[in-house]
Amino acid sequence: MPEAVDQLIHAEWIIPVVPENLLLSDHTLVVNRGRISAILPTEKVAEQYQSAQEISLPGHALIPGLINSHTHAAMALLRGLADDMPLMTWLNEHIWPAEARWVSEEFIHDGTQLAVAEMLLGGTTCFNDMYFFPDITGRVASSAGIRAVLGLIAIDFPSAWASDGDDYLHKGLQVHDQFRTNPIIHTAFAPHAPYSVADPILERIRTLADELEIPVHMHVHETHDEIVQGLQNQGKRPMERLHDLGLLSPSLAAVHMTQLEKSEIELFAASGGQVVHCPESNLKLASGFCPVTELTEAGINVALGTDGAASNNDLDMLSEMRSAALLTKGVANNASALPAAKALSMATINGARALGLQQETGSLEPGKSADLVAVDLHRINTLPVYHPISQLVYAAGREQVTHVWVAGRHLVSEGSLTTLDLQQLAARSKDWRERILATDVDN
Amino acid sequence: MPEAVDQLIHAEWIIPVVPENLLLSDHTLVVNRGRISAILPTEKVAEQYQSAQEISLPGHALIPGLINSHTHAAMALLRGLADDMPLMTWLNEHIWPAEARWVSEEFIHDGTQLAVAEMLLGGTTCFNDMYFFPDITGRVASSAGIRAVLGLIAIDFPSAWASDGDDYLHKGLQVHDQFRTNPIIHTAFAPHAPYSVADPILERIRTLADELEIPVHMHVHETHDEIVQGLQNQGKRPMERLHDLGLLSPSLAAVHMTQLEKSEIELFAASGGQVVHCPESNLKLASGFCPVTELTEAGINVALGTDGAASNNDLDMLSEMRSAALLTKGVANNASALPAAKALSMATINGARALGLQQETGSLEPGKSADLVAVDLHRINTLPVYHPISQLVYAAGREQVTHVWVAGRHLVSEGSLTTLDLQQLAARSKDWRERILATDVDN
Repeated sequence: MPEAVDQLIHAEWIIPVVPENLLLSDHTLVVNRGRISAILPTEKVAEQYQSAQEISLPGHALIPGLINSHTHAAMALLRGLADDMPLMTWLNEHIWPAEARWVSEEFIHDGTQLAVAEMLLGGTTCFNDMYFFPDITGRVASSAGIRAVLGLIAIDFPSAWASDGDDYLHKGLQVHDQFRTNPIIHTAFAPHAPYSVADPILERIRTLADELEIPVHMHVHETHDEIVQGLQNQGKRPMERLHDLGLLSPSLAAVHMTQLEKSEIELFAASGGQVVHCPESNLKLASGFCPVTELTEAGINVALGTDGAASNNDLDMLSEMRSAALLTKGVANNASALPAAKALSMATINGARALGLQQETGSLEPGKSADLVAVDLHRINTLPVYHPISQLVYAAGREQVTHVWVAGRHLVSEGSLTTLDLQQLAARSKDWRERILATDVDN
Repeated sequence: MPEAVDQLIHAEWIIPVVPENLLLSDHTLVVNRGRISAILPTEKVAEQYQSAQEISLPGHALIPGLINSHTHAAMALLRGLADDMPLMTWLNEHIWPAEARWVSEEFIHDGTQLAVAEMLLGGTTCFNDMYFFPDITGRVASSAGIRAVLGLIAIDFPSAWASDGDDYLHKGLQVHDQFRTNPIIHTAFAPHAPYSVADPILERIRTLADELEIPVHMHVHETHDEIVQGLQNQGKRPMERLHDLGLLSPSLAAVHMTQLEKSEIELFAASGGQVVHCPESNLKLASGFCPVTELTEAGINVALGTDGAASNNDLDMLSEMRSAALLTKGVANNASALPAAKALSMATINGARALGLQQETGSLEPGKSADLVAVDLHRINTLPVYHPISQLVYAAGREQVTHVWVAGRHLVSEGSLTTLDLQQLAARSKDWRERILATDVDN
């Protein structure tokens, strides 16, 4: 007698990611109680499983949900407000003034919804966030059904969310408690950057992160200016300072890492720390090139993020994966660097590892949460399909994502969102546009 | 009495590209006899024009058709056959054997149709091609309605198309004659590369190109190996050899140009030559970085191309434009380098200039051919729309292209092709996949 299960997903190709480069043709993924029960040849399913919910995906690749390991979701509302300018001009003259004027519960709510809609439609099932009002971000994500790691942000200047270092930590801990039992909402401490968070707060974060066993998510060595500033203000490079403060550890997810000396790569590798590479943001802000090949050769886990939509300007992990694969080859001067399967790992299992979620998501393995994405490769842009993993990385676009599930919940079906209202989101975005344009200096 | 015209296209934004950075809100483009008659505020149309064909595009940007200034269209059939390997391995072990085995009239027909479908759906209205059987490419393009510049290819080794240098030139001249009166099919001499075409053929091409007043389209300084080989075989760098042969002139469209000394940039600028930048192909094959900023500062016209789908792996000019803007900033270490409006120019008017078609296409100006693309910016990925040109370059995707016209003919309507059958193309692509996979060494 076949076992009754919640869902059977039959796909032309299943790419589990672990083990790397494995391609299963004409297989079925079995979902029960939100988790992956089994993956087996479709022809053998009938004798073992039955379900009222079956979906057949000819021409599709079924892959683990993509993990955006660094973003500022609500900044989607600032997408394209200020382009073609360097990081400090962009921050000081446009982004920070706009944030000071506009960041509020309503802004975070609407901005995060806009971002979540875009991410889900593009095949992202988990995002690692860093922004104000993480409680609102958590509420929006939970309601939409997307997995999120809320950044318990800390920064040396006051905001609508918190007044000082203590207040940021206090509110962060409340957010951590609030979502403790939510199976898809996780937390991480998120000290903004070495140049924007003082030593005492970083030390307390180190202690608290150890106690709560959650990651620390931080911009590190994003630009050359940051290094110069660290040398001026602390007499050492930021990495050395983080080392002295005890922050370098397997729980640190260091974002950007474009300015690295050989000894720093060795130090970081020895610490077991995680790197989050954001190639498009680094290019757009001309921040420098992350030495991905050297990092992976040193044994460091490298995950992938889009950064916020204001410096990218999208939240498209398929295109980010492609940019990472292409840019790594160019920077390494080696066309074999970061081959397609490794780029896919960066966007999935490496992200899960960086966020401490590798038991839960990041690959298609029995027991893990059913965080899944179906991509239709039988479209004009990806034909002929010689190698599905290559087509996925080098040719597939976000519009080829047809179905998305998080913890077994069907969030995108036939290219449409099931938990968010696009028209409402568009209307709210237009409303924010009017309000924000009225106060931007250049407009 | 209002004048009767063929079509009225009302758009929320019209971006003519010439003059650069101009944005017209709530304007109408008037099309008559395949040409742009006028662009005027929508509120003033009724008193001057009337048409049985009117289309309203709220939330859309109407832009000049994108010009893919370097591709090998039929290679779409080899998309993803061999990835993650350097240029010479890729060519010698995979691409050239596959071509030797498979290139035929049928291959070119099916491959070009696949490429043209992808290009049209992504907003490309003109492509500059270099491949075998340009007569077939011309026939497919003309029938599909897309503008094309057929490369009259010359290369030192025999192919199914021609047996030797003389034969390539002879057949090329026949193709030139065959399409002489076709208003959307143009020609250019296309000697493959300095390392693959001998001096006598290059000299004849120089003379013939002057006589016929058509461009010369050639891979130049693509990789470091090419330079080394030139020094070994001819005792000089390829650029110097081209200069000695008289090839450096305003009619030369030099593709790639990743290996350039300062004196070579000066020499090339003085010659009035054109550069075609292919950022994604250069990254994927780790060929080097084209110094776009230095080239434009030297006054050189820089156009944009995808290269063939086998080294990209798509023919998406919107994404290529974005890659160019991002990569140029990274390489120049300057976030203000190649701002959005200049990237859009590269993908439109600069391409027209490089191909000698600037009187005919590349911008929205009265008298030019109605080669037009409508992009829907009111989609989740491009909201809010603070600056339409920024959103177009940094956030819009090919799936946001809704309408495409070439010479006033409506080739994509509401996202669907009007002149090609997608299902038939998909079936043929699958058929080619089976045949080609059976003979590739790695498969």
